[in-house]
Amino acid sequence: MTAGTMKAVIKTKPQFGAEWGEAPIPTIGPHEVLVKVVACSICGTDLHIYEWNDWAAHRIKPPQIMGHEVAGEVVEVGHEVSSIKVGDYVSAETHIPCGLCFQCKTGKPEICRNLKILGVDTNGSFAEYMSIPEVDAWKNSRSLPPEVATIQEPLGNAIDTVLSEEIAGKTCAVIGCGPVGLFAVAVARACGATTLIATDVNEYRLALAKKMGATHLFNPTKTDVVKEVLELTHGDGVDVMCEMSGNSKALHQGLAMVTPGGRASLLGLYNDKQTLDLNTEVIMRGIHVLGITGRTMFGTWYKAARLLESGLVDPRPLITHRFPLKDYAQAMDLMISGNSGKVVLLPDGPS
Amino acid sequence: MTAGTMKAVIKTKPQFGAEWGEAPIPTIGPHEVLVKVVACSICGTDLHIYEWNDWAAHRIKPPQIMGHEVAGEVVEVGHEVSSIKVGDYVSAETHIPCGLCFQCKTGKPEICRNLKILGVDTNGSFAEYMSIPEVDAWKNSRSLPPEVATIQEPLGNAIDTVLSEEIAGKTCAVIGCGPVGLFAVAVARACGATTLIATDVNEYRLALAKKMGATHLFNPTKTDVVKEVLELTHGDGVDVMCEMSGNSKALHQGLAMVTPGGRASLLGLYNDKQTLDLNTEVIMRGIHVLGITGRTMFGTWYKAARLLESGLVDPRPLITHRFPLKDYAQAMDLMISGNSGKVVLLPDGPS
Amino acid sequence: MTAGTMKAVIKTKPQFGAEWGEAPIPTIGPHEVLVKVVACSICGTDLHIYEWNDWAAHRIKPPQIMGHEVAGEVVEVGHEVSSIKVGDYVSAETHIPCGLCFQCKTGKPEICRNLKILGVDTNGSFAEYMSIPEVDAWKNSRSLPPEVATIQEPLGNAIDTVLSEEIAGKTCAVIGCGPVGLFAVAVARACGATTLIATDVNEYRLALAKKMGATHLFNPTKTDVVKEVLELTHGDGVDVMCEMSGNSKALHQGLAMVTPGGRASLLGLYNDKQTLDLNTEVIMRGIHVLGITGRTMFGTWYKAARLLESGLVDPRPLITHRFPLKDYAQAMDLMISGNSGKVVLLPDGPS
Amino acid sequence: MTAGTMKAVIKTKPQFGAEWGEAPIPTIGPHEVLVKVVACSICGTDLHIYEWNDWAAHRIKPPQIMGHEVAGEVVEVGHEVSSIKVGDYVSAETHIPCGLCFQCKTGKPEICRNLKILGVDTNGSFAEYMSIPEVDAWKNSRSLPPEVATIQEPLGNAIDTVLSEEIAGKTCAVIGCGPVGLFAVAVARACGATTLIATDVNEYRLALAKKMGATHLFNPTKTDVVKEVLELTHGDGVDVMCEMSGNSKALHQGLAMVTPGGRASLLGLYNDKQTLDLNTEVIMRGIHVLGITGRTMFGTWYKAARLLESGLVDPRPLITHRFPLKDYAQAMDLMISGNSGKVVLLPDGPS
Repeated sequence: MTAGTMKAVIKTKPQFGAEWGEAPIPTIGPHEVLVKVVACSICGTDLHIYEWNDWAAHRIKPPQIMGHEVAGEVVEVGHEVSSIKVGDYVSAETHIPCGLCFQCKTGKPEICRNLKILGVDTNGSFAEYMSIPEVDAWKNSRSLPPEVATIQEPLGNAIDTVLSEEIAGKTCAVIGCGPVGLFAVAVARACGATTLIATDVNEYRLALAKKMGATHLFNPTKTDVVKEVLELTHGDGVDVMCEMSGNSKALHQGLAMVTPGGRASLLGLYNDKQTLDLNTEVIMRGIHVLGITGRTMFGTWYKAARLLESGLVDPRPLITHRFPLKDYAQAMDLMISGNSGKVVLLPDGPS
Repeated sequence: MTAGTMKAVIKTKPQFGAEWGEAPIPTIGPHEVLVKVVACSICGTDLHIYEWNDWAAHRIKPPQIMGHEVAGEVVEVGHEVSSIKVGDYVSAETHIPCGLCFQCKTGKPEICRNLKILGVDTNGSFAEYMSIPEVDAWKNSRSLPPEVATIQEPLGNAIDTVLSEEIAGKTCAVIGCGPVGLFAVAVARACGATTLIATDVNEYRLALAKKMGATHLFNPTKTDVVKEVLELTHGDGVDVMCEMSGNSKALHQGLAMVTPGGRASLLGLYNDKQTLDLNTEVIMRGIHVLGITGRTMFGTWYKAARLLESGLVDPRPLITHRFPLKDYAQAMDLMISGNSGKVVLLPDGPS
Repeated sequence: MTAGTMKAVIKTKPQFGAEWGEAPIPTIGPHEVLVKVVACSICGTDLHIYEWNDWAAHRIKPPQIMGHEVAGEVVEVGHEVSSIKVGDYVSAETHIPCGLCFQCKTGKPEICRNLKILGVDTNGSFAEYMSIPEVDAWKNSRSLPPEVATIQEPLGNAIDTVLSEEIAGKTCAVIGCGPVGLFAVAVARACGATTLIATDVNEYRLALAKKMGATHLFNPTKTDVVKEVLELTHGDGVDVMCEMSGNSKALHQGLAMVTPGGRASLLGLYNDKQTLDLNTEVIMRGIHVLGITGRTMFGTWYKAARLLESGLVDPRPLITHRFPLKDYAQAMDLMISGNSGKVVLLPDGPS
Repeated sequence: MTAGTMKAVIKTKPQFGAEWGEAPIPTIGPHEVLVKVVACSICGTDLHIYEWNDWAAHRIKPPQIMGHEVAGEVVEVGHEVSSIKVGDYVSAETHIPCGLCFQCKTGKPEICRNLKILGVDTNGSFAEYMSIPEVDAWKNSRSLPPEVATIQEPLGNAIDTVLSEEIAGKTCAVIGCGPVGLFAVAVARACGATTLIATDVNEYRLALAKKMGATHLFNPTKTDVVKEVLELTHGDGVDVMCEMSGNSKALHQGLAMVTPGGRASLLGLYNDKQTLDLNTEVIMRGIHVLGITGRTMFGTWYKAARLLESGLVDPRPLITHRFPLKDYAQAMDLMISGNSGKVVLLPDGPS
C-alpha cells in the first residue's frame, strides 16, 4: 500500500494560476490503479483551467490537481482489477463512461451521456502519483518513450478528426496549427492525404506544420487562403477540412474551401456562438459536418500506438519543450505565447 | 417533327404571379427528348418563383416557363439520343450536370460544380410540352399513375434525406411536415424507423403526417417538443433528425433532440443565416450534420420507383389536390395557405 | 439466497437425446445474476446438440443443461452487479466476451478471440433457473410477452444478417426459411426491402415466409430459382442476398442471384467445405461476402427490441408451437420434421 | 485526318505468341479519340493472351492488337467529343461501359453488366496509335513521365484493393508480389498501414516489396507464414488482407491471417475453383470478403494521379525494365520468368 503525500500542481482558487503544493497520494478504489507519473503533458484544456476562462469557471471545482495526459508505472491495483498488473507501463484514456447508457451499451462509451473527464471532473496527472480507473488504463509498449506515450491522448483527437471518414488519396486542409492541429497534419500525411494544406496566423506554428508534413502553408493574415486553396486545387476545393482552431473566421474559411460533397470535421471549440449561412456553406454543397469529441475506446488508441511505433507518425519535431513538473508556470506562460508545440512536464525533471 | 405553339404557365415579369400564355413547342437539341406533359406537380421552389422571393429575384430570368416535376410521354428524340425512344413514359431528374468537373467524374453529378436546374435555369414542365436532356430522362413503369410518377422527384429528396445514413431500427424525428417532410415520414416508416416523430406548427399537416406513418406528433406552438422527445426516448433523444422546415427555431429544437453520436440531415433551406452554439449543439455531442442536396443520379430514382411500385410508400394520402393546369393560380393560393399536401397539375384536366 | 434443486433438460451422454432431470439451482458469482426462466426457445444449435452431430461431439462436454434463448425474472444478483436489480425482466445475450482482447477493446466483443457461448460452453436456459453474466443481461420492456422476449436473440441474428449493409429500397433474396431465415424476411420487409424473395425446399416454410412479408416465393425443387429471380429483376439480380440455409446448392444459387456490386451476407453454417468459382461467383462481379456471426453488444438488441415493440416486426405468425418444458423431446421431434416455425418451451407450461 | 498504316503487336493466331506486323491506323468514331502511343506497359492479362491460356482461348478473337495500359498524345478527336482536345496527354481507363444498365445508372460503370474491355474486346495499345472511347480518356498532368502515366491503370487496381475499406492505422498483409501486389504494398504504405507484411515465393519479388515499403517479408516456401503473422500481431492477425496471388494455398494462408471482423480483399484470379471451409475461414470469424474488379470511373484515377504526383507512391523501383515496343517478345519472356517488376514498352524506343 502506497501512502503519504506527494507534490502536485493544484488549482486551489477560482482565479488565474495554480499552486505547487502537497497532496495525499491517491487512495484507489477496487476498480482503479495507482500510477507513478513519469511524464505528463499540457493540453489546451489545462491552459483554460490555468487561465480560468468562462468554461473552467463553470466546470472546475477547486481544489483539484490539474492535468490528464500521462505516462507512468502502475504501482498498485484495486482488488477487482483484472486487466492491469503492478509494473505495467500505462497511459490514460480520459473519458470515464457510466457503462449503462445507450451510448455505452452500443459501443460508444466516449460519448457517454453521463461522461466524466479525468483531470476535469477528478484529480489529474500533474503530480507524482495519479489514480486511473481500470477502464481508462492503456498498456504502452516499452518502445515508446514516456514523453511520447503521454501525447497519445491528444494525438488520438487528431486521429479521430482526420480519420472520421476516408483520407487516403484525398486533398486535405488543416485549419489551425496548435499541437492537435499539428498532430492532424502528421496523421493526414501518414495516412495518404496527397495535397495537405495547413493554415495558421502564427509563423512559428506554420514552420512546425511544414516539419510535420504539410505540403502548403497559408497565413490568413497575409493572404486570401480560400482563393489560394481553390487555385491550388483547380477550383475544386479540398475533399477534407479539419477545423482545429476554434476561430470563427477560420471556420468560415475552412467551410468555403471544401469541395461539394466533401467533409468538414470540427474538433476546435469556439468561445461564442457561430453564425453560418447553412444554405451555401453546408446544405447546397452537400457537405458533411462531423462533430468530433475525440478518441474511441480503444480503437483510436490502437491506431495511435501503431502510428507511433511504426514511425509513420514522428511526434518529436512537435514536442518542442520539456520542463520539470515544478516549473509548470513557466511552461504555461510559454503555451500562452503560442510559440510552442507540445510541452511535456517531468516529475523527476528532464534527464 | 412537332411544331407550333402550346399553352404554358409563364413567369413573364419580376413580380408576384405568372401568366397563362402561349409559347412555342420546344425545339429539341441532339441530346434532348420532347415530352408531352401528362401530369406535373408544384414544388416549394415553384412557389418561391411564383411569389418572387429574394432567391427567385436573383436566380430567375423571365420570361420562363415554370415547373420541373413531371410525368409524360416522349414524342420526339434528338438524333444523338440512344437510351430513350418515342413512346417511352418518363419523368425528369432536374439536375443538369456538366459531365466534366471533379464531382461529375467521380459519380456525384448531382453536386456538379457547374450545375443547372431544369425549370430554374431552363424552361420547365408547367406546359403541354417540355424538353428534357437525355441524361435527365427516367423511364417509368406503366404501373405508376402519372400523378404518382411526377412526385418521384420530390420523393427523391426525402429518400436522400432519410437514407443518407442508416435508418433501420432507429428512432427518428422529422422536423417540418410540408410535402417533402411528409414524404420523409413515409420513407422513414417504410425503411424501419421504429419511433417516428413528426413536428409542425400546422395541425392539418400533422394530421397528414399521421396518415403517412408518424407514431408521435408534436406541435411546437403547443408543447415543449424537445422535452417531449427526450421523455419519449428515455432521455436518449433520437438517432436521426431530418430537418425539412427551413425554420430557425425548429433547427435548434431538432439538434437538441439528437442523441450523442446521432445524425442530423438538413434539407430545408433558411431565409437567413443561422446562429449555432456549435460546441454544445454539434461538436461535444459528436453529431453528424449532413447537408442534403437531394437525389443521386440515379440511385435515388431506383429507390423511389421501387418504394412506390412495391407499395411500401403509398403517396396517395399526401396528394391532396388536383387541378387543371390552367387553374395554377388557385393551386398556388392553396399551397400558400399551408393547408395542402402535394398538389398536382394536369394539362388535360383531372379525369 | 436461492438454493435447492430444479428441473432441467440435461445433455447427460454423448449421444442422441437429452434427459429431464434434477440439477442444483445455479450458484451465482459476483458478476452474475440468477434468473427464474419464464420462457425459453429452441435454436438450431440446440437441435445439433440434441441430435449430437459432429460439431456437438467436438464442442459440448456433458453433463450440461441445454438451451440459451430465454426470458425471465431476476431473483438474485451478484455483489459486484450494478446494472441489474432483483425483479428485472431480462433476456440473455449469449456471447461471453473476455473483455481483454483486441476485438473486445475495440467495440466488437461479439467476436472476442476468447469467446464463450452461453448454453454451449456453460449450463443453459432449458431449466427453471439460469445463471447469466451481468454483461449478457438485457432488460426487457414489460410490453414484450415472454415468448417474444425469448426470441430476440435469434431475431438479432437475422437483424445483423439483413442490416449488415443497407437494405432500404433494395431488392433482397432470403435463401432458406428456417426460423432465422423467416426472421430475416420479417426484418427485410420492415426495413424497406422492396422486392423480397424467399426460397426454401419446404412448402410449409414458404407459406410462413409469405406471412412474414415475402413478395415472391420459390421452391428450388420445383423451379429454376436463379432464372426466376433474374427475370423478376429485369436481369439485374438482387442487391442483397442473405444465405440462411447452410445448404451448398442454395449457396451457389444465392451467389448467382446477386447483382454485380451487390452484397451476400452468410449466416448459415455448412456441414462441409464449399467449392466456389471465386472468379465468377465473387471477384469479377465485385460481390461483398460478409460473414455474419450475429448480434453486436448491444446495438443489435436495441434494434430487436425496437422492431418488436413498435410492431414493425410481428413474430407471432412465426411462433408456431408452445410446449411445457418437460415435453422438450416432442418439441425436438417437431423441429427435426422441419414443419415448424419457432418453438417455445415454458417451464410452467402454456397458460 | 490521320491515315495510313502503323506497326503493332498483333495476336494473329490462337496459339502462343504474337506478331510484329502492320495494321491500319485506327479510324475513330464520333465518340472516340486517336492517341499516338508514347508508352505502354504489360499486364498479366496481356501475358495470358500471349501465352494463350484457357481464359484467352475463350475470350480473344484474333487477329487483334494486344495491350491496354497506355500513355500518349491525342492527335484526333471524334466530332461528338467535348471533353478532350487534340494535344491532350492522356491515359486510358479500360472498362467500356454500356451506360444503360442498372450498374451504369447508379454510378458503378466499372461493373457494367454489358462491360467490354479495351485491348481484350477491342484493339489495344501495343501499337503506334490507338483509338480510345472519350468516356475512357483520362487527362494526365505533364508532371508524370509517360512510363509512370501508363501504369496508373494497374496502380488503380491496387488502390481499389487496398482502399476498399479503411487502411489507416491498420495492420495489413499483401499476399502475392507481382506488379499489382507490389503496387498494393506501396499504396498501403502511403495510406497508413502500420505493420505491412508481404508474402511471395519469389525472393526477387520480396526484395522489390521491401523497396516499396513492406515492413515484414515472408516466403511461404521457407516458413510458416500464418504462424509468423500471428506471432507478429500478438495473436490477433491482420486487420486487412489483400489477396493478389491467385494461388490457392496463398488464399487459405491469407484468410487464416485475418483477425476476426477483419477484411479480405480479393483481386487475384484463380485457375480453378477453390474449396473453402466457409464456417471457420469466413463466417464464424465475421470476415468481410470483398471481390475487387478494379478502378471506379474515375474516383480511382484521381487517387492514382494524386498519389503519384504527390510522391506518396513512387513507382520507379517497380518499373524494372523498359524495351522498344518491337522487342515485346523479349519483354514477355522476362515477365514469364517472374524476375521483373513492371515492364514498359516504348514505340519510339527508350530514350
